[in-house]
Amino acid sequence: MTYCIGMLLEGGLVMMADTRTNAGVDNISSYRKLHVLADTADRLIVVLTSGNLSITQSALTLAADRMAEDDSADMPELASLFHVAKFLGGLLRTTREGMLRALEQAKVATAASMLIGGRVGGEPLRLFHIYGAGNFVECHAEQPYMQIGETKYGKPIIDRVLRHDTPIEEAVKVGLISFDSTIRSNLAVGPPIDLLAARNGGATVQRRIERDDGYFADMSARWSTLLSDAFDAIPAPPFLMDQPA
Amino acid sequence: MTYCIGMLLEGGLVMMADTRTNAGVDNISSYRKLHVLADTADRLIVVLTSGNLSITQSALTLAADRMAEDDSADMPELASLFHVAKFLGGLLRTTREGMLRALEQAKVATAASMLIGGRVGGEPLRLFHIYGAGNFVECHAEQPYMQIGETKYGKPIIDRVLRHDTPIEEAVKVGLISFDSTIRSNLAVGPPIDLLAARNGGATVQRRIERDDGYFADMSARWSTLLSDAFDAIPAPPFLMDQPA
Repeated sequence: MTYCIGMLLEGGLVMMADTRTNAGVDNISSYRKLHVLADTADRLIVVLTSGNLSITQSALTLAADRMAEDDSADMPELASLFHVAKFLGGLLRTTREGMLRALEQAKVATAASMLIGGRVGGEPLRLFHIYGAGNFVECHAEQPYMQIGETKYGKPIIDRVLRHDTPIEEAVKVGLISFDSTIRSNLAVGPPIDLLAARNGGATVQRRIERDDGYFADMSARWSTLLSDAFDAIPAPPFLMDQPA
Repeated sequence: MTYCIGMLLEGGLVMMADTRTNAGVDNISSYRKLHVLADTADRLIVVLTSGNLSITQSALTLAADRMAEDDSADMPELASLFHVAKFLGGLLRTTREGMLRALEQAKVATAASMLIGGRVGGEPLRLFHIYGAGNFVECHAEQPYMQIGETKYGKPIIDRVLRHDTPIEEAVKVGLISFDSTIRSNLAVGPPIDLLAARNGGATVQRRIERDDGYFADMSARWSTLLSDAFDAIPAPPFLMDQPA
């Protein structure tokens, strides 16, 4: 399993991914799922991956190799982040198709998806969700985030808090709370958490948040206490009161 | 979709279910999923159902018919709630097996499961989760609740708050908050919410909580505000601070 979030905000872009991979609960490893394909004045390309690791890794390697070639600056596939998403989606589809029959025979799950965020040249920061079939959709202001992997446990808190105009620091905070809830509920999602934040027109910050990170541990403890307090502050339902204990 | 919770507490039993059923998003109806098969001095049998409605309804009808027969008081299937769970699980399995081939040919989902709570005679209140294959597991104090249907959105808050010694009123409160989060996130879970609470050695209370129920609306609004306040009370992550806006 995996949990990844991309958030596209007025102030910039936030990309977060856990690092746990597993083939059954008896085979757990740590793999990086946040990949920075480019971070220069010309372009920022950040990819988060979920699903069958052999598929996403192969597709990503093919993309990185092509982009590392000498003539890559002129590639039409890199004209905008939309074109990069299309290029990467194509590689994901063909890689997946090439492995599909053998994996299905082995009863191995073939689902695979990606989030891609960043910009090419002077365009604003953008965010796309690429599906296993290679098709993709772009993130918009009304729903300023996208998730892949184990999306449900951590979704309610994001829906309640995140808006397009949420400041980046607050977005990272809600992202970490969302990861905290997910990590508590699904063993197949685990720390460290990789984080990249990019401000519009500014530089990017990358950080790996380890299990013993001081801020994360403090936030997690505070959030538990605050939730308990909030729960206690709500009156009990009146419709059981007629019923003596 | 569906969302049902059963909670087995020191003080008694709480069973809750939504009422929305759907075959695609363009075909939504309201069906009762909380069924009281018996509520007498001798026995309490409450069943919550999830999955293919034709399967769970048929199995439940067969069980209710059998239990309505004159000699039902002597049925070995009703010797304890364990035996009732086994009886109902058998009916669920055979009903599902009888429909399986035709439903699979029609590409209709055949998943079906139930929660059964209550007691027979003087035994303490018990709770079981019955799977589509007819097998079942019993709820225990370390994990004092069971869910079926759309379980993920509403699970984190229960995990944080519910203990075996949580009073029944507080358990109903966390159950309603869990439903609130689930209803916000999944269109296929919807009000009214059916609720049954039974105290050990006491009578049962049943209630249908409609969309416009005053307590539920107030709780939902307060919870939103309290969560926002809790979120605001947590410091922003320090690791972006070196990055000018």
